[in-house]
Formats: sequence, structure tokens, C-alpha cells
Amino acid sequence: MTIKYNNVYIEDASTVAGYYESFSPYSKYFDKIYKKDFYFGEKSLEKAETKLFKESIDILLKKCNLKPSDIDVLIGGDLLNQITSSCYGAKDFNISFLGVYTACATTGEEILIASNLLENKDVKRVICTTSSHNLSSEKQFRNPVEYGGPKPMTSTFTATGGASILLTNNKKSIKVESITIGKINDLGVKDANHMGAVMTPAAADTINTHLKDLNRDLSYYDLILTGDLGIFGKEILKEYMSKEYKVKLKSNYNDCGAMLYDLSKQKEITAGGSGPVCSALINYGYILKMMKEKKLSHVLLVPTGALFSPTFLFQKENILSIAYAISLEVV
Amino acid sequence: MTIKYNNVYIEDASTVAGYYESFSPYSKYFDKIYKKDFYFGEKSLEKAETKLFKESIDILLKKCNLKPSDIDVLIGGDLLNQITSSCYGAKDFNISFLGVYTACATTGEEILIASNLLENKDVKRVICTTSSHNLSSEKQFRNPVEYGGPKPMTSTFTATGGASILLTNNKKSIKVESITIGKINDLGVKDANHMGAVMTPAAADTINTHLKDLNRDLSYYDLILTGDLGIFGKEILKEYMSKEYKVKLKSNYNDCGAMLYDLSKQKEITAGGSGPVCSALINYGYILKMMKEKKLSHVLLVPTGALFSPTFLFQKENILSIAYAISLEVV
Repeated sequence: MTIKYNNVYIEDASTVAGYYESFSPYSKYFDKIYKKDFYFGEKSLEKAETKLFKESIDILLKKCNLKPSDIDVLIGGDLLNQITSSCYGAKDFNISFLGVYTACATTGEEILIASNLLENKDVKRVICTTSSHNLSSEKQFRNPVEYGGPKPMTSTFTATGGASILLTNNKKSIKVESITIGKINDLGVKDANHMGAVMTPAAADTINTHLKDLNRDLSYYDLILTGDLGIFGKEILKEYMSKEYKVKLKSNYNDCGAMLYDLSKQKEITAGGSGPVCSALINYGYILKMMKEKKLSHVLLVPTGALFSPTFLFQKENILSIAYAISLEVV
Repeated sequence: MTIKYNNVYIEDASTVAGYYESFSPYSKYFDKIYKKDFYFGEKSLEKAETKLFKESIDILLKKCNLKPSDIDVLIGGDLLNQITSSCYGAKDFNISFLGVYTACATTGEEILIASNLLENKDVKRVICTTSSHNLSSEKQFRNPVEYGGPKPMTSTFTATGGASILLTNNKKSIKVESITIGKINDLGVKDANHMGAVMTPAAADTINTHLKDLNRDLSYYDLILTGDLGIFGKEILKEYMSKEYKVKLKSNYNDCGAMLYDLSKQKEITAGGSGPVCSALINYGYILKMMKEKKLSHVLLVPTGALFSPTFLFQKENILSIAYAISLEVV
């Protein structure tokens, strides 16, 4: 399902990043960086993540010279059980709230819901926010890092950060042109340390559907950017799309997970970044800046999510995946 | 934030219920009931819940004589971490998917998102589904019931079931007239065994905002039905709304949690029902039937959700809450 929009624009966005992300080749595009530790003055990892969620909204409101009461709806989602950092991060703003969960595809789902809300004239401004935290994620989905479990090379590294985007139906220079809502994919992968492989079929299916629905080919876009497949997942996607859909991803394709870290220097990060904020840091920091400067004009963002339930993995179920495709255009 | 709709209708709905729900005064309105055990032929409680999610969609499609490919978007949400029953319950239908999380307020958020999608003419039909399972919830949020922990009188009982509703922009006899998107409320309650008290401020705030935004009073509605406050929460809401907002809830007010079970006979259920499917069983079973028969014409559904994170409760945070208000009208 692909929906076209005529009246949805990006007003601005904000990014807050953590220690490992401070070494990113794209770190100069982040609004704020925490370099000291992983707690940011909070008493728990979950509260630290909540702070990133909250701060990205504070920064965005300040950038746009707006108050919380100027925002009609706040959409939040993250990786924690009961999307805790979203709920607790949102509570003090007193804005009508929607909570979503599609793991690392969160920003895609959020922008879709926001865009539909904004087609109604009574809704003027919607903020979409997400966060992730490397240590709160490891603790919840695998083991606390202090346990020292070794990681295979294919493991992606959950990014630490918070990121927000403000969408509006007032005309601005970047437009949400269309969005493809992905389906849940299951290619039979059970390896929680190879999320790139898990998410490949969802990315491929959604990109293919997007191109078919709109009768476009890849060359329509200056850049196609998948969510967080990482360096191995990125190569798997190229091969998979070529074999499965006869679509050849070329130099206008990249992956946010492969881009976020400097893998030549950050040796402890083997396969690249992941987590919902991974693609948000690249997209809301670097990509929007490039679009504002008209260095990119047509961009397809494809946030990918692994719907990974530790409970269901213990029960020998596969890990599912989903992806959304968001077409942005400079107007 | 309240949004009005001109073109969103309810085509039909479906309900699947479990053992305790089979004794409900409203059980004759359920499409299917599992009376034998809590596993329904599945190997785990989570897989059993997933089956309810899936079956409610199967039943709804059959009722409407539709195939999965006739549905543009499927919206799912439940109480399990990573909304597992929604993701795994949705996967075989191959429908564009959105995952939401606002605990027991799930159906409210789903209907809001679906209604906005349907304002776009390219979207014709959206299914919203939810599920909950008493034993999978107890295991995840408190303790496995086999541990035998005693419950205080104020504990509500998570309902077991799956429920779906099909929304469309083809004219039907029941219309979604308007929806109020609630804010996150925090009244300082930390008692995970008194969800009625936790959710009261959210219900009150959302009902009050709805009435103010639309310049209505309570008498506009034949029935106002809160989500799942239970018998104690229902009384707290009456008192709270009267003191805080000078609004007197009268005989046209009731609560799905207080209604679902026959508390005079089902002595093990002390405060009533809860879980996202609790209000869905009443609303999609009984209420829609009453509206189709024109015994009710104007109904305000107010699903309420406790944003309860066990992790944050251990860290001494309050339990947050949210509610949405959905105005349905017979046309």
C-alpha cells in the first residue's frame, strides 16, 4: 500500500547522540552529544534513554521557536518493553500522544501516521520522536553487557540517541511525497545476532512495492537509504533484490547502519549500527541538511525493523521484519 | 486534540473470547468462545494469545466476505513485549501493517489511525485488531499465576480474547463521528494492583477535553463507556470528574471493565475486567449490535490504558495512563 501526499512538509528535526556516536563521520550534524558516560546524570539506563527522547523534543521546539502547546500530536516509539522511554519522555509535554511499535522501523511508521493526521486541516503540527540506548537494549534483548558475552561479526550495535522531526501542513522546502506501508516478512531467520539478514526481505519487499506502485525505477531517487541493515545486511540486500526482484541497487543506494560509525577506527563495532535512532541520526541530521542545501533532491528513506521477541525466540519462532518507504522531495 | 470525520464507517467487527469470558452477561454477543483451557491447542500462552488475534481477523474477513488482499492496512497492538501477538498474528495475512502500543487504550489509538488513513481516498478498508490473555499478561507483568500470589480486591482481571473491527469509507450504518486523542496522565499512583485508580485521570481528562472541544455535554450521548476502570475505578472516576471538572456522570455512563464479568457469580474476579480486549469484547460485540438495532444512536467509547512498565515501577516511577474518546453515531 502506497499513499501519496500533497500537503505534508518537514519543518525541522533534532538529534541527540551518545559516546560511540560522537565518533561518527556524521557527528557534526548532531545537535547534542553526550561524551562522558551512558547515564547522562540519570540513575538507570532506561531513565538515561528517556532523557534522550525528551531532550530531542526540547531541542526541536527551541529550534522552531515553538511551545509544546503549539504541537497537536506527539508520536513516540522505541525498543523498550511498553515503549517506556516514549511514554515517560512524552509525559511532561502534555501533548496528545500516540505510541507505536515497529522496532527500528519506528520513524517510518511515525511519519506515515503523522502525514495522514496532517491531511486533516485541524491538525497543524505533529512531532515524531524515537530513542534507543545501546546498554538498555542489550540488557533487555540479550544480556547486560557486563556479562561480557562475545558477539559474532554480524552483530549490529544499537545506537544511543534521541531524535525528533516536526511535520506540518504549512509549506516548507522539503515535502513528504509518498509513503509505502510495508508488510510483515518472515524469511525463516532465527539469529538475533544477524539483524541485517533478518530485515533484508522486508527492505526488499517494501522498496519493490514502492517502485511498482508508483511506476518508478531506482534512478528516480538521488539516494535510497535503508534503515539499519549494517555492512553485511547491505550486501545481502543487493544480492537479494537482484535475484528476487531483478532490481540492481547501485551507487545511489546506501544503508544508515553501514554509515553511522567509522568502522575503520571503531573496531568494537563490527557490522554497523542499528536501533530506531540509528537511521534517525543519519536522516534527521545529515540527510535533511543535504536536502535543505539542495545537494539532494529526491530521497527514499527505508527504515527497517526486526520484530524480535526474546520470548518467541526461546519458543523457536523466527524473527519477523518490516520496513516502510518514505519519499522526500525538495520543493 | 479532537478530530471530526465525515467519511469513516464501521463495516463489521468480530470477537473471540476465553473461558472466564464465557460466563459474561454479554457472552451471547461473542463470535467464538474457547471454554476448555487457556492454550487453544498451542504450545505456549503467547502462542495461544497470537491465535486469538489471528482468529478474530479470520472471522471478520469471513463475516464480510472479504479476502486479506481486500484490506489496505492492518493495525495491531497488544500487551505483550514487542507486541508479539500482533506481529506474529498478522504475519500470514500479508497486509500492510502498523503496530501500536498504548496498553488497554489500544483500540482507541487504532481507530484514530485507521480513521485518518481512510480520509485518503486510496485507502478503502482498514482492520484494527487487538488481543490479550490473562495468563500471558500475569506472567509478564506480575508473576506466573502458578506462583499463587494473592491479589488485592482492587485488582482487575486481564480478559482473554481477540477482537477486530473493519473500518471503511464506504457508507455504512454506523459512523466514526469524532475522536479525541488523549494526553499522558500521571496522578502519582504506583499500585500495579489498582489500575482503575491509575487510569482515572486519563479518562477524566479525555472526556472533559472531548466535551469542551465539541461544545457538548454528557447528555449528547446515549451511552459513555470507559475502557476498563473496573468497579472501583468507575466510582473513582465519577467522584474525580465531579470534583475536578464539575461534570456529573449519570445513568448514561458505564465501564466495560465493570460490565464484562458476572461479579456476583465469578467471585475470583474482584474488581472487573481489563486488558485491551476487555473493552473490545463489549464494544465490538454488544455495543455495535445495539447500534445496528438502533437501540443506541450516539455512543462515546473511551478506552483507557495504564502505561505500566515493570522496569520503571521497580525504579520507583509512577504508572502513567492515557485514554482516547471515540464518538460513534448511527446514520
